[in-house]
Amino acid sequence: MIETDVVVIGAGPVGLFQVFQLGLLGLRCEVIDVLPEAGGQCVALYPDKPIYDIPGVPVCTGRELAAQLLKQARPFLPVDPATGHQAHLHLGQQVVSLAKDDTAPPAADAPLPYRFTLQTTTGQTFKARAVIVSAGAGAFVPKALPLPGLPADAPSPANLHHHLPADGQPAPWAGQHVIVAGGGDEALQAVLDLSQAADSQRPARITLLHRRDQFQAEPALDTAVRDLIAQGRVELALGVPQGAELAWSDAGTQAPPALTAITVLGPDSQPRQLPLDHLLVRLGLSPKLGPLADWGLPMERKQIPVDTASYATRIDGIHAVGDINTYPGKKRLLLCGFHEATLAAHALLARLRPDEPQHLQYTTTSALLHQRLGVSH
Amino acid sequence: MIETDVVVIGAGPVGLFQVFQLGLLGLRCEVIDVLPEAGGQCVALYPDKPIYDIPGVPVCTGRELAAQLLKQARPFLPVDPATGHQAHLHLGQQVVSLAKDDTAPPAADAPLPYRFTLQTTTGQTFKARAVIVSAGAGAFVPKALPLPGLPADAPSPANLHHHLPADGQPAPWAGQHVIVAGGGDEALQAVLDLSQAADSQRPARITLLHRRDQFQAEPALDTAVRDLIAQGRVELALGVPQGAELAWSDAGTQAPPALTAITVLGPDSQPRQLPLDHLLVRLGLSPKLGPLADWGLPMERKQIPVDTASYATRIDGIHAVGDINTYPGKKRLLLCGFHEATLAAHALLARLRPDEPQHLQYTTTSALLHQRLGVSH
Repeated sequence: MIETDVVVIGAGPVGLFQVFQLGLLGLRCEVIDVLPEAGGQCVALYPDKPIYDIPGVPVCTGRELAAQLLKQARPFLPVDPATGHQAHLHLGQQVVSLAKDDTAPPAADAPLPYRFTLQTTTGQTFKARAVIVSAGAGAFVPKALPLPGLPADAPSPANLHHHLPADGQPAPWAGQHVIVAGGGDEALQAVLDLSQAADSQRPARITLLHRRDQFQAEPALDTAVRDLIAQGRVELALGVPQGAELAWSDAGTQAPPALTAITVLGPDSQPRQLPLDHLLVRLGLSPKLGPLADWGLPMERKQIPVDTASYATRIDGIHAVGDINTYPGKKRLLLCGFHEATLAAHALLARLRPDEPQHLQYTTTSALLHQRLGVSH
Repeated sequence: MIETDVVVIGAGPVGLFQVFQLGLLGLRCEVIDVLPEAGGQCVALYPDKPIYDIPGVPVCTGRELAAQLLKQARPFLPVDPATGHQAHLHLGQQVVSLAKDDTAPPAADAPLPYRFTLQTTTGQTFKARAVIVSAGAGAFVPKALPLPGLPADAPSPANLHHHLPADGQPAPWAGQHVIVAGGGDEALQAVLDLSQAADSQRPARITLLHRRDQFQAEPALDTAVRDLIAQGRVELALGVPQGAELAWSDAGTQAPPALTAITVLGPDSQPRQLPLDHLLVRLGLSPKLGPLADWGLPMERKQIPVDTASYATRIDGIHAVGDINTYPGKKRLLLCGFHEATLAAHALLARLRPDEPQHLQYTTTSALLHQRLGVSH
């Protein structure tokens, strides 16, 4: 269990700047994101697209902006020498529950107790005095492949995947047959990565499954995958899934089954069975509010109303910043989220450290801020 | 007379980003600043100090930030090929009056007429449909030298200066005797600049007047000026001004007089007369609300209350952004001003172009915004 002042949900650009502002004010925080990398949409959806409206940055790509924000927050996301990871940055996990203990509500002028308990998909538990939701349009989760024949109430097949293994992790499909489903950048990049993997990680056979013989990918990627197909190193299967064959383990329907084959309907309208060892679905990411919708936060059209003095929601101790919130005049722009994160941090300073000086200090002149940033003058 | 959609008062960082946001939304604007350079405090007060809290910019100096914001706003501040100047940027002039014509108030849903008339110290007149005040702590005006003996109701002496001539302008003191008053960076830099000016611009004699034989300047500047004094190229006079000798022209007391000498009281408590041709006062800049305090805007502790949906003041058509405004939760930070400028621009789009689509477009994807920015994809 990790105890902290503030849990920030979402490590997109606004979540990263939230970490910076909380750190600057001397508040401890932990930040959680479902994606395997910090940067949110900027990295997941438009890493190479130019952005022109970040104040003081005439042009940058999504990836560059995320890298700069991560660099700016680095004083408050130090690398743990034991693990080599940024200890307060928790990636690849989604917050599944957020509970508030209201048995002893604090006096209005007393510091907030550790009232919030959060749990994530990887089993981590966090205790926090406040929560800031910077979840953008929701958690970016992989789009599912519609696969008739999968029982809705059964566990997901153990050999159905949506992600490549993290760096340094063994590939589950080494020496076996993988079908990669999709026709966009994510699918073609996966095919290329699998075909170029080290011997110990590489599948024996790779099939790319797409509904038609045309991809929606970057030209260079398209060409590279076409070459692999022409060389016979990757097979191309055309069709739309119509059914799935499952093998159940002896443990019964509570244990995840295994996919053994899928049936696809090809362009010739003939069904065809494709046996497989693993199915890797790469249809891109889609934002989902997910569990957040169940936390009892009042929502208006999938957004959380906040007040503009503190970006507090209607639940005491929970703030919301960036695209997830709404208020009169709201524009879903990054630069607005940066402002919101700043005011939310100052509001929490007043709640969590009421005895400390609250006057605004400037990074140009404050010795205290320089010390927190690790710079000296 | 210049007619435009919006006059922006103040070309500091927030005013420059205001120009960018108005331009992005297709609104015409003119921006006015009392300083000879865009960038406000960032350039005038802390050009070389590092700033750490601009989102996505881990560190930059004030001068660098101003340069980047000016570059970002450049599509909307084009250079006039006839004059070589940025036609919509009006520097070195202060707005002295702001009048509103309320004879025909518009219907709430009708576009705003050209109701505002502004006049500046250089005699320029602007007609605008809306005004955005981004005046920071007020107009940065040079600190005056207390000079007993100057009649308060007479025009300022013609040979009393506070600025160096703009690039390409003749120096009024060429071949004459200048006394430079001050002991900080501004005074020492002026002494250095005067001593290094081209032959046709250089004074014949330079005296630095300061109350004591110790300066408050950057070490390199201090050394350079000490060298000039040691070489006899600059004289150092110590003392505090006690009186001024004036010569009046034949036109009487309505025409500006000329200073002929000042009397200073030296460290030895002896008065001493210093004859001069020109007095250049370089005591730094000080923000003054100035005429703005008389425009009928309701103010609270020298700041203008605004609403946080549009950053509108209580006078219809006038908005206020950046350090000059106040609202619950307000923090006087640049990044907050950038947000305020953005919402003010969107609010004015709705008022000035009610028939145009109001939905938010993104600079990553919008062909219209790319066209306005002059970029193509």
